[in-house]
Amino acid sequence: MANASAPLDALVIGAGPVGLWQGFQLGLQGLHFELVDALPHPGGQCAELYADKPIYDIPGLPHTSGQALVQALLAQLRPFSPRMSLAHTVSQLTPLTDEIWQVEALGPDGAKQWQARCVIIAAGVGAFLPRTLALEGLPALLGHQAWHEGHDWPHWRGQRVVFAGEGEAALQGALDAIEQGAQSVQLLHRREQFSAPDPIVAAWQAACAQGRAQFVAGQATGLDLSHGRLQGLQYLDGAGQSQHLSCDHLVMALGLSPKLGPISDWGLAMARKQLVVDPARFATSAPGVYAVGDINTYPGKKKLIVCGFHEATLAAFDVLERVRPGQNHLLQYTTTSQTLQRRLGIA
Amino acid sequence: MANASAPLDALVIGAGPVGLWQGFQLGLQGLHFELVDALPHPGGQCAELYADKPIYDIPGLPHTSGQALVQALLAQLRPFSPRMSLAHTVSQLTPLTDEIWQVEALGPDGAKQWQARCVIIAAGVGAFLPRTLALEGLPALLGHQAWHEGHDWPHWRGQRVVFAGEGEAALQGALDAIEQGAQSVQLLHRREQFSAPDPIVAAWQAACAQGRAQFVAGQATGLDLSHGRLQGLQYLDGAGQSQHLSCDHLVMALGLSPKLGPISDWGLAMARKQLVVDPARFATSAPGVYAVGDINTYPGKKKLIVCGFHEATLAAFDVLERVRPGQNHLLQYTTTSQTLQRRLGIA
Repeated sequence: MANASAPLDALVIGAGPVGLWQGFQLGLQGLHFELVDALPHPGGQCAELYADKPIYDIPGLPHTSGQALVQALLAQLRPFSPRMSLAHTVSQLTPLTDEIWQVEALGPDGAKQWQARCVIIAAGVGAFLPRTLALEGLPALLGHQAWHEGHDWPHWRGQRVVFAGEGEAALQGALDAIEQGAQSVQLLHRREQFSAPDPIVAAWQAACAQGRAQFVAGQATGLDLSHGRLQGLQYLDGAGQSQHLSCDHLVMALGLSPKLGPISDWGLAMARKQLVVDPARFATSAPGVYAVGDINTYPGKKKLIVCGFHEATLAAFDVLERVRPGQNHLLQYTTTSQTLQRRLGIA
Repeated sequence: MANASAPLDALVIGAGPVGLWQGFQLGLQGLHFELVDALPHPGGQCAELYADKPIYDIPGLPHTSGQALVQALLAQLRPFSPRMSLAHTVSQLTPLTDEIWQVEALGPDGAKQWQARCVIIAAGVGAFLPRTLALEGLPALLGHQAWHEGHDWPHWRGQRVVFAGEGEAALQGALDAIEQGAQSVQLLHRREQFSAPDPIVAAWQAACAQGRAQFVAGQATGLDLSHGRLQGLQYLDGAGQSQHLSCDHLVMALGLSPKLGPISDWGLAMARKQLVVDPARFATSAPGVYAVGDINTYPGKKKLIVCGFHEATLAAFDVLERVRPGQNHLLQYTTTSQTLQRRLGIA
């Protein structure tokens, strides 16, 4: 077993298809690695945007889906039993020494840190983060009286809650609040039109008809604060008039949106919001930091999963050279190599 | 339908896993292509060397075999119904104009020619060709009194036949000759040791015990010719003495061996017997000629199937730019593009 306090050989940021394959290739090289992802489940875009949609251009899989591909890659990764920190959004990448990077992420239980010889950014189109409202004074309320999609919300008994949104998370959240005995439940959106499964929309409409909840057509423009506490919401109604809505809590269930986020602040060479890499190694401009998949760019780059698989494979070879230099690393094949088969747990 | 006399958009040399995937990517781009391979079946090394052996490092296929991978890639290629010329060994690549290449191959029914705007060499470790014996005067006898593995042999009734070899093809060929009523059947090899399935070895040994065939320990050193016709074989026996063996036919069933063959004569830039390519396009030094898979080299190159898949994908994009220049080719996804799904035959 690796020493718990020893730095990782590599930390992989992103557990989408390319990040999962990156883990497999690192494991095959006998390297000690972990994965971290902003979403609460592995799979990245494949799980978040294409779970049930067909994919036809993965070699050897004439017909798969986002979710099926992720499941297959997870099964392939299983022999290496990697630690995976989900629902963790990486915030900082700092050189600790010339050889070791420190990575910090925020998760449901606070901040988490890793030390790693190499960092591989497989962050796709960025971290999938909850969409927010740009309202003055909002950040100070987060986790107290303002809440985002995907986070743990409190119990709503006795509270006056406004949900912003029109999707399944907003409607289901509002219905749950009614169940929990909220004092009032209101749903704020531009138009009374929802993108949620029919039964959920029907349940919401029934709750409104029974007077247990209320739809409010409008767009939030400001917060009413008193001594730092949320008192209510200002919004523009359909006629363009400013209106007020009293509440104790604001829940922003506006969907998830990928954000490059802090990656652009790490001083890595970029071109058109992509990380510039050397296609022989998929190394960025910072020694020991790699980028694979949709987030990188190099001459000829195509944003295809099949290309990301290749990129992650070559990156793993370079990580091995960096972490165990001066050794004669021969290319081995899983078909014939007893070393690789032992790592894969094959008898 | 494409005009039969119009040049192909691309000819793919090699129908191994990377050549098959190359076809898929060309088809997805709406390009008109054919495949040619020296082996009588698709699959290249995967079919010839690893058919029943496990492969663990194809992304999304935790456990497959050479043959299973080839079958999956063939199924994936099927929507494009490509013409595949098997048992054809490419001999010549010649520029016909600045825009069009002429490719010539030798097959069981003689020479075959193609004209193509692009040629993609996916020849792996080279063409799998039958091993031969280096004997003076042999080439003039081929197809008359000397025969190679994998070719159509004549009926042996009444003939005196010497088989050279120790594998399944040699033993099974000798057993077939006995069945067909050959006048004599002899098997020449250095040692009386065989690499063939047990039942075939047992059948051979039984035939010898019954006096229907004979094993000869030795190494062929020359041919006895009279007026250009084969009369017999000279060989060195185990004691180093020169001996003679009368025969009408010599069958060389010595296995298949990959040969780079004429590819090294085409004037393409090479390094250590590999074709040098630009990793942004996988183009060789000759305009319109590409190389993908184990046969190419570029900084960071690893001879892995997963890398060949990427190379073939980028090559197809560049072929499209070359064949249909000046058009704004957008990257499309099979998940969402109706154009790609129509090409794939998906309703």
